[in-house]
Amino acid sequence: MQTHRPLPRLVFGRGGSGSSRELPAEVAVAISYNGSTQAVMMATPADLVDFAYGFSLTEGIATADEIESVEAVETDLGIDLQIWLKAPAEDRQRARRRSMAGPVGCGLCGIDSLEEAQRKPRRVADSTFTMTPAEIMQAMADITSHQPLHDITRAAHAAAFWSGGIVAAREDVGRHNALDKLIGAMGRIAHPAGAVVLTCRTSIDMVQKCAAAGFPLIIAASAPTATAVETAEAAGITLIALARPDGFEVFTHPHRIAPQEAAHVA
Amino acid sequence: MQTHRPLPRLVFGRGGSGSSRELPAEVAVAISYNGSTQAVMMATPADLVDFAYGFSLTEGIATADEIESVEAVETDLGIDLQIWLKAPAEDRQRARRRSMAGPVGCGLCGIDSLEEAQRKPRRVADSTFTMTPAEIMQAMADITSHQPLHDITRAAHAAAFWSGGIVAAREDVGRHNALDKLIGAMGRIAHPAGAVVLTCRTSIDMVQKCAAAGFPLIIAASAPTATAVETAEAAGITLIALARPDGFEVFTHPHRIAPQEAAHVA
Repeated sequence: MQTHRPLPRLVFGRGGSGSSRELPAEVAVAISYNGSTQAVMMATPADLVDFAYGFSLTEGIATADEIESVEAVETDLGIDLQIWLKAPAEDRQRARRRSMAGPVGCGLCGIDSLEEAQRKPRRVADSTFTMTPAEIMQAMADITSHQPLHDITRAAHAAAFWSGGIVAAREDVGRHNALDKLIGAMGRIAHPAGAVVLTCRTSIDMVQKCAAAGFPLIIAASAPTATAVETAEAAGITLIALARPDGFEVFTHPHRIAPQEAAHVA
Repeated sequence: MQTHRPLPRLVFGRGGSGSSRELPAEVAVAISYNGSTQAVMMATPADLVDFAYGFSLTEGIATADEIESVEAVETDLGIDLQIWLKAPAEDRQRARRRSMAGPVGCGLCGIDSLEEAQRKPRRVADSTFTMTPAEIMQAMADITSHQPLHDITRAAHAAAFWSGGIVAAREDVGRHNALDKLIGAMGRIAHPAGAVVLTCRTSIDMVQKCAAAGFPLIIAASAPTATAVETAEAAGITLIALARPDGFEVFTHPHRIAPQEAAHVA
């Protein structure tokens, strides 16, 4: 499936030219486990196997070694992302579903639902990974050369993993999907300690996903929410935001910012 | 509940000053109908009654006159947004829930879920509302003076309704929530034909929400997805994007762009 396509447009004002613009595709992806749908997300149709692994990990459903197989089946209506779990994870997932499904939908009252939604983030392992201010600004500059879909459409988010340089990057029209794809990709390759670089802002769920993946440092282009900062504090994650070529702001755990001359090795 | 609060930060590089930054709050809001939760969203804790009305309308659950009452109950874990439906809407909602809840979660296989997710947008009534290019650029400029949370935090989305000027505007850390809040607010006041102005990009779900509200024209600051353009085309909505002080691009139904000298009256 194509990740972008040209759509006709009329340009008013400024000297735009050309009768069409390349726009990112946005496709319905049904994520199902052993034949039953868990969620339907609108996503960029690329790196879907990574997406399956990352979503499974960050939603607490299964780790990479609990997944038997993943198949992305293209249909006229979108993509049926079929994930097959090995027995222990499948049993756990079936039990969780049974406890949530009742005759009146999710069966939870408001208070119980709020409790269910505020899952405490896992605290990341105490890593000695650090970055210098120069490396932080460089990482943010480097991500721009790993955004092919954004280069074409100017309308896609990216999430990258940095460890001495950009190791992997993934894009999506949805920032959560881009991060899940990156986490899925990183979970399946051996990698040293490093930082996540995000082209977007940081809300609580982005921090929760990084905590689930065990990433000790987040570098984001835009501002975080107050709740994201508090969640990063609790998870032991260094949260750097408003990162631009001329500087950045550190909201939590600044001990991972090394003096300018120090190395970043873990 | 406060919509923003100061968090400590360290500034590296650029001449930032001050040991803290005002960041937007992000609170879990459980939306429940007649005592059973439908969804939990992370949202800015403001205009929650508008949110209840807008979400109910755009998700196809209930129109304003089918809602008996709305109460936003603050708890330690977030907000319990309790919506009580009148009998016909309540019966409909209960039947829909029953059909979706089975012993294995939502009970749908991937293909059925994809069909369920691609609900066809309602076609907006044929309105004679038009805007001149100058009005379109002015509407985008005007929204900036209706973003008090963004003024403080530089990190909130806004959705506004324009009809000769900005009639109403709502903000949220989530762009879908800002639009739902605006739609909820507009549904409860008599208003002439007009346009929705968005500070963000336009994905398919934003267009679906505008179609549900019957808005004939969308003006967005950023680029749309290809799927959003196709959905606006099908819904009869004029989609204007990349709207900035120096120009804009029209992707669908350009007949609502009036010659520069024409009036915008419907």
